[in-house]
Amino acid sequence: MSSKRYAVLGTGALGGYYGARLHLAGHEVHFLLRSDYAHVRSHGLRVDTADGTHQLTRVHAHQTVDTMPPCDVVMVALKTTQNHLLPTLLPKPLAPNGVALMMQNGLGIEEEAAALVGAERVMGGLCFICANKVGPGHIQHVDYGEIMLGDYRPDGKPAPISPRVESIAADLRAAQIPISLADDLLLARWKKLVWNVPYNALSVILRATTDRIAKDPDACALAEALMREVVAAAAAYDKVIGEDFIARMLLHTEKMRPYKTSMMLDFEAGRPLEVDAIYARPLAAARVRGVECPRMETITQQLRFLSPQGAS
Amino acid sequence: MSSKRYAVLGTGALGGYYGARLHLAGHEVHFLLRSDYAHVRSHGLRVDTADGTHQLTRVHAHQTVDTMPPCDVVMVALKTTQNHLLPTLLPKPLAPNGVALMMQNGLGIEEEAAALVGAERVMGGLCFICANKVGPGHIQHVDYGEIMLGDYRPDGKPAPISPRVESIAADLRAAQIPISLADDLLLARWKKLVWNVPYNALSVILRATTDRIAKDPDACALAEALMREVVAAAAAYDKVIGEDFIARMLLHTEKMRPYKTSMMLDFEAGRPLEVDAIYARPLAAARVRGVECPRMETITQQLRFLSPQGAS
Repeated sequence: MSSKRYAVLGTGALGGYYGARLHLAGHEVHFLLRSDYAHVRSHGLRVDTADGTHQLTRVHAHQTVDTMPPCDVVMVALKTTQNHLLPTLLPKPLAPNGVALMMQNGLGIEEEAAALVGAERVMGGLCFICANKVGPGHIQHVDYGEIMLGDYRPDGKPAPISPRVESIAADLRAAQIPISLADDLLLARWKKLVWNVPYNALSVILRATTDRIAKDPDACALAEALMREVVAAAAAYDKVIGEDFIARMLLHTEKMRPYKTSMMLDFEAGRPLEVDAIYARPLAAARVRGVECPRMETITQQLRFLSPQGAS
Repeated sequence: MSSKRYAVLGTGALGGYYGARLHLAGHEVHFLLRSDYAHVRSHGLRVDTADGTHQLTRVHAHQTVDTMPPCDVVMVALKTTQNHLLPTLLPKPLAPNGVALMMQNGLGIEEEAAALVGAERVMGGLCFICANKVGPGHIQHVDYGEIMLGDYRPDGKPAPISPRVESIAADLRAAQIPISLADDLLLARWKKLVWNVPYNALSVILRATTDRIAKDPDACALAEALMREVVAAAAAYDKVIGEDFIARMLLHTEKMRPYKTSMMLDFEAGRPLEVDAIYARPLAAARVRGVECPRMETITQQLRFLSPQGAS
C-alpha cells in the first residue's frame, strides 16, 4: 500500500463508497460533506456491500475544504450540476504534485479541472457502479464497481499508461475496487456515453428501470438509435466504436438486473439532472464537427423540461 | 334545416357534443353508446357549454348498430384505437346515398372508411375542439368547436366544394357549429398534424399542459422541430405548408388557455393512445417518400412505450 493521502469531494453514493473502500484498506481519506456533515461527524459512515455492513466510526469529515490537508489524490465525485463549486473546492486540498481524479459522468469533465489546476494534474476515473445513498452517511452498494482509470491529455490522443496511473490503480485494487486502465481516456468517455445517453434519459422520460426499456421493442430500438448517434459523434473525433460494442451494451442491459440509473435517482429525489455534462456537451461536440444527432437533441430538450429546479 | 338523419358512432366528448348540437337544432340523431348506454337511456345526455347546460332527455340511444335506422350522415367519432370495430359498425347504419363523416385525428382515416363503404360515400370532418366527457352521458364543452369539412378524394388532390359538403355544412352551421370548408382534405389533415404531432405527444411524455410546453424554451423548440418534420413529410406529397403556418401554430398555442390534449386525457384515463393514426401512419408516409423524421420517430417510440394497454 502506498502512503498516499486521499480526499473525496462529494460524499454521495459514489464518493462515499470508494472513499470508504480506501479507508477500510488503511488509507487516510478526507471526506467533504455538506448535508450529512453533522451525522457523519457523530456516527461515521455506513457502507452496506455484498460482503457485509461496514461501519466506519472514525472518518475524517470536513464541512469545508479549508480544514483539509494537502492530498495526493482528490477524487471528484460531485454531481456535475455542482461543478460551479469546483473553483472553490478543488485547488485547496490538491497537493502540488497531487492528482484530481475526475469520477463524474459526461464530456469535458477533465477540461473543467484542468482549467483550475493544470492539465498535468488531472486524471479521469470512469465509474461503473450501482450504489445509492439511502440515508445520512449511509451508502448501499448494489452492483458492479469498476473504475476505469486514465491520464488526461488535452489533445485527446491515446497515451501509454503512466506510472502515476499504475500507482493509483494499485491503491484502488488493494482496496478491493476492480480497476481497468484506459490508454485513451476520451475514447473511454465516449464509450461510456454510448450507454449513459440512452438509458439515463429514457429512464427519466419513460419513468422506467433499465429492464423495462430493454424488454420493450420500441424503447429498445430508440436506445439503439441513440447509441448510433453517440457513435457517429465519437467517430467525428477519430474515436472509433464498433458495431459489436453497441450489440454488447444492448445485451448487457438486457441481462442486467432491474436498475435505476443515477439520473432516475436524481429525478426521483427532486435533484437537478446532469443534462449539460451528459447531453449538451456531446451534442455541441457533434455539432462542431457537423454531425447531426436529432434523437439526442430531442431527449436533451425533454430532459431540460423535466429537470427539477432546472437542468445544468 | 334539411331533413337529414344523423348517426353518431362513439358518443364520447366529440360525438356527444356535436350530436347534441344537431339534436338541439331539431335533427333526428342516433347515438351509439357502449358503457354509457344504460345511463343515457334513462337520463339522456347532458352537455355543458358556454351558453348553459343542455339536458337532452329524449335521445335515440343505441347499444348496437342493429337497432339504428339508415342514416344520411354517419359521424364517426370513435377513437382510432377502436377502428378495428369499423367493419362491424359503419356499413349498417349508413344509408345507400349516405355519407360517412370521419371526424377522427390522424392520417389514412378516410381510406379506412372507403375500404368499407366506397370512397364516394366518405367525407372528412376535422374537429378543432376542446371538450371532455366528465361523467356518464355528461359532456363539457371547454373551448373552440370548429369542424373543417371536405370531400375525400382517393388521389389526394384538391377538388371544388361539392353540393353535398355544402348541404351538411348548412346543417351543422344551423346547429351553431362553426364550419370551414376544405377543398384539399389531405392538406387539411397534414396541417392538423402540424399541431397534433408535437402537442399530443409532448403533453403525454412531459406530463404537461400546452401552456407549459409553449412557455418552456426547450419544449417549445422541440415542438417547432417536430412541426418542421411534419411539414417536410407533407411536402413530399405536394402539400405545401408555409413557414407562416408554423409561426401561427406556435403563437396560437402560446396564447391558448392551458389545455389538456386529447392524448393526455386518454393517458390520464388509462386508455390506449392513438399512436398509429397520428404518428405511425405519417411516419410511414414520410418514409415511403424518403423523408427522415427522426424526432417524430423518437416520440412515437416513447408513446408506444407509455401507452396504457398498448398503443394502436
